[in-house]
Amino acid sequence: MKSLSKIAVLGAATVAVGLLYASPVQAHVETEDLVNADANKAEWLMYGRTYDNQRFSPLTEITPANVSEMTPVWAFSTGGKFAGLEGTPLFHDGVLYVSADYARVFAIDARTGMVKWRYVPEYDEGLDAVVCCGPSNRGLALKGDFVYVQLLDTRLVALNIADGTVAWEATMDDWRQGIASTGAPLVVKDHVIVGHAGGEFGVRGYIRSYNAQTGALEWTAYTIPGPGEPGNETWPGDTWMRGGGTTWVTGIYDPELDLLYWGAGNPAPWNADVRLGDNLWSNSLIAFDPDSGDIQWGFQFTPNDPFDYDGNAPGPILIDVTIDGEAIKAMVQSNRNGFLYVLNRENGEFIYAVPTIDGINWTTGIDPVTGRASIDMTMYPMSGGPKIEPIIPNLEGGTNWFPAAYNPDLGYIFFNTNDWAMMLKAIPEEDIVYVPGEYYGLHDFQAYRLGENFGYTKAFDVANKKFVWEVPSTEMLFAGLLATKGGLVFTGDERGFFMAIDAKSGEVLWRFQTGSGINASPISYELDGKQYVAILSGMGGDPLYYYLEEPKGGMLWVFAIDGVLQDSPASNVVPIPGAVPLFEQ
Amino acid sequence: MKSLSKIAVLGAATVAVGLLYASPVQAHVETEDLVNADANKAEWLMYGRTYDNQRFSPLTEITPANVSEMTPVWAFSTGGKFAGLEGTPLFHDGVLYVSADYARVFAIDARTGMVKWRYVPEYDEGLDAVVCCGPSNRGLALKGDFVYVQLLDTRLVALNIADGTVAWEATMDDWRQGIASTGAPLVVKDHVIVGHAGGEFGVRGYIRSYNAQTGALEWTAYTIPGPGEPGNETWPGDTWMRGGGTTWVTGIYDPELDLLYWGAGNPAPWNADVRLGDNLWSNSLIAFDPDSGDIQWGFQFTPNDPFDYDGNAPGPILIDVTIDGEAIKAMVQSNRNGFLYVLNRENGEFIYAVPTIDGINWTTGIDPVTGRASIDMTMYPMSGGPKIEPIIPNLEGGTNWFPAAYNPDLGYIFFNTNDWAMMLKAIPEEDIVYVPGEYYGLHDFQAYRLGENFGYTKAFDVANKKFVWEVPSTEMLFAGLLATKGGLVFTGDERGFFMAIDAKSGEVLWRFQTGSGINASPISYELDGKQYVAILSGMGGDPLYYYLEEPKGGMLWVFAIDGVLQDSPASNVVPIPGAVPLFEQ
Repeated sequence: MKSLSKIAVLGAATVAVGLLYASPVQAHVETEDLVNADANKAEWLMYGRTYDNQRFSPLTEITPANVSEMTPVWAFSTGGKFAGLEGTPLFHDGVLYVSADYARVFAIDARTGMVKWRYVPEYDEGLDAVVCCGPSNRGLALKGDFVYVQLLDTRLVALNIADGTVAWEATMDDWRQGIASTGAPLVVKDHVIVGHAGGEFGVRGYIRSYNAQTGALEWTAYTIPGPGEPGNETWPGDTWMRGGGTTWVTGIYDPELDLLYWGAGNPAPWNADVRLGDNLWSNSLIAFDPDSGDIQWGFQFTPNDPFDYDGNAPGPILIDVTIDGEAIKAMVQSNRNGFLYVLNRENGEFIYAVPTIDGINWTTGIDPVTGRASIDMTMYPMSGGPKIEPIIPNLEGGTNWFPAAYNPDLGYIFFNTNDWAMMLKAIPEEDIVYVPGEYYGLHDFQAYRLGENFGYTKAFDVANKKFVWEVPSTEMLFAGLLATKGGLVFTGDERGFFMAIDAKSGEVLWRFQTGSGINASPISYELDGKQYVAILSGMGGDPLYYYLEEPKGGMLWVFAIDGVLQDSPASNVVPIPGAVPLFEQ
Repeated sequence: MKSLSKIAVLGAATVAVGLLYASPVQAHVETEDLVNADANKAEWLMYGRTYDNQRFSPLTEITPANVSEMTPVWAFSTGGKFAGLEGTPLFHDGVLYVSADYARVFAIDARTGMVKWRYVPEYDEGLDAVVCCGPSNRGLALKGDFVYVQLLDTRLVALNIADGTVAWEATMDDWRQGIASTGAPLVVKDHVIVGHAGGEFGVRGYIRSYNAQTGALEWTAYTIPGPGEPGNETWPGDTWMRGGGTTWVTGIYDPELDLLYWGAGNPAPWNADVRLGDNLWSNSLIAFDPDSGDIQWGFQFTPNDPFDYDGNAPGPILIDVTIDGEAIKAMVQSNRNGFLYVLNRENGEFIYAVPTIDGINWTTGIDPVTGRASIDMTMYPMSGGPKIEPIIPNLEGGTNWFPAAYNPDLGYIFFNTNDWAMMLKAIPEEDIVYVPGEYYGLHDFQAYRLGENFGYTKAFDVANKKFVWEVPSTEMLFAGLLATKGGLVFTGDERGFFMAIDAKSGEVLWRFQTGSGINASPISYELDGKQYVAILSGMGGDPLYYYLEEPKGGMLWVFAIDGVLQDSPASNVVPIPGAVPLFEQ
């Protein structure tokens, strides 16, 4: 036995808590970086990667020929309450910026996988009990010194990019009314533009612009016109005041046209016969002047909607395309009502629409000139009337908020759809009572699965108006998509599989089981000359979900072919001085 | 545009909930399978793999030469409250049996990664507020038709291996007294033997044996002798009644000697001067007759312990070894008090001890003949006396519960240690009051980190009494180890790295960042001719932990070289008929 001697000096009797390691000087993202984001092949600077929202990575290292060699390089647990991940990470200057449930934000050194800083907002008590649809967050925005995040309670927060401390915050609205926010902010010039949810609470939807430097409110633009404004006549009486048309999916921007596009959700209440009329601009895409918020034009997908077919989900994609011999500055969206729409983004003119799913039965058809859909009145739930079933699609779509992607080399848009139906029974008109912060006039509702296959990943040739391929899945699909110049499409399923599909053929070339359902959107980035693909995986445990509790989870996954994780000089866990110890029993 | 037609028939208007797919007939594990577990190279049938607890996999596909090619094949999220994973999975007949926090159990088809069944126990309200040290669970046992799990509230449950339904359950004790269970049951012949925690609550430790078929209680064996029993004289007055000596780490078994070995933890209260004497069999390894529970012999590591140096952590390893020319049926344990002990497992005779960490200062030395340690009385916290610091090791060890591993080809035992110190200040004697379910006489306590390096993975040559190598880590190490015939040692760190070390040289050959801290123990198994390595990764969020909340997580990871995940005919998530839908805002 060695003889024992008492130690005389402790190497470090206490351990400092604070920044885990020094932050390098950041190369800041400015307006021209955002406008020219496509030329920055390595990075992913905004929610849709580029203002046109194509989610197309120009990286080409990973291809159909080698994707089978792709493996996880590292993973990061987002922790907290594991309430579901729906975000799109950003990548800039070697750092991944990731938002998790409750708008928690992580800056992660992509070379080491270690946390650089984290931001964990605090909320008032009672928030969860009021706001609808879970505490997801879908993403962040970058500009100058700041990382922008919109909190679940609608606060817009600018975090200092160097250390995650709060530079300023602006309170957009009162969550006690049922107004919440889950989308990524959009930075346009010196504006940070944000929207909100709460369409089921009888709110009146709007978007707001805040000064990117100061957080000062610049303008508010309502989606539901007030008295004297064009479209107010599409609402009987004062129904416009609680008309819904919320703006919970991030908008997009055309720098050349200087037009901001933002979608509006379903009208409220769900009973449509108490608000007879088109109910503009619910279920519409709206073009705004980004400096004033003035509406330039709108296009409505589902007039007088009794079906909850939010017209804002997902955000459209801007493409320049020649259709029937005419060069068009177009925008394309696979809508929740079951149709894919192509519009002229200069003026909102309807170009064409095609059904994305089989069996659509809520409409007698779409006018080929105006694009106006006519509701089949035999499918229309009347207040206090009989239940209507099956209605296709289910209110979740068609396609929901999960972003589509576009490969400009192929001219294909890629999106996920789900095949399901619903029963709706409208409640009696007299039961619709507006109480702030309570559900306002929902139908009785039941979802139906339609068959063995549930979700489909589809490729559609916009110029030639034809579907190219589809990949059926036994699972519901609620993940976004990524297209790459390497010729791949990435997406995930509710069972936890992250997959790579050949963009041309639709062949599934690679899958990896991430352990929890994927409801988020992948990105690709290049670091030190190597291409990586990142995706958040994690279902929430909210009982509102259709699915059994497991496999709840929450993880950022990073994949590559022979990817490298460098060592870190420090841990991302640090002892808490004075903390009560864990007694090991 | 396609014309629309209403669908006439729904493919499947409702979806059945129940078994996800039919269970194949299981080849049941019987006593001879457990006794001969080592010959079953492909499987991992009990907590320590074999009764000798060597955690040595005979698989050889993965070697130091190719381990750098090892990548994750799939992952599985354990969901729930993500309260920390400390388990050792079992593998039998193509199925992984995994226990998670709160003793939730998953049977996972290892070919598809899909859940075959899950068991989620329900607990009385208030349990978390009473029991000490978090809701971890460390593992399961298999025999016949059953998977055995001991619940946090001490219930022993037999689950039907085919479908996870409860065959029987036996309530061992009343959790309201502070008694909890976190260990894996041990099956010996037709006995299921279990222990408990609660040493800080003034309980009297014991193990119990239940009939493996019926759950009938067979015997109870107290670790603290009662009046008239040998050793009771080492306790003044009635202090034996609340003397601690709990049994929260799974025991082991020698089929040839027919001896059951089980460790006992620290004596209670922590104030040692109120229970002057050796306080047998606290902090001891005890040999029992597995059929009667009669104590055959004991060996005490830390007499009259004032330091919380539980003698039961980790479970020892049984090896046959020649030391100084003598062939010995030995048992080896790296103890929490900072020494590694080699005992004769036939009779408890002391062979030798060596310090496993630097700076041990609580003892003036260990008697080279008897193995009895003498406390340095200048380090002894007296009731109401001054604080004593630094005491090395910290009460967490040395080595704690996390299992060691042994490579019989090399004769090396591998274990993790931590370098840290503590301050102790004994409370006044009059403040020690026994209240059922409340802490009973703890010292004031503070832990100190000792330097840049914290944890060490060490290899020790038992026959030659010498350390072979050590791998320092900046992180605390609280993970178990796996040794393989392929020449590797696997373990993990609190930062989330799972790593492979060359068993001969100590070189770290491979690491993977799993995203959350690793506090569990790896296994290896063979499926369809390929070697896999599995590990649970996930820190809990309990504020008792020394570490910041992130990266909390909970995931089963499965690794291999060119491993295969087969497709599954069904999802592990199924719709809940009639569930309230998720409104997408």
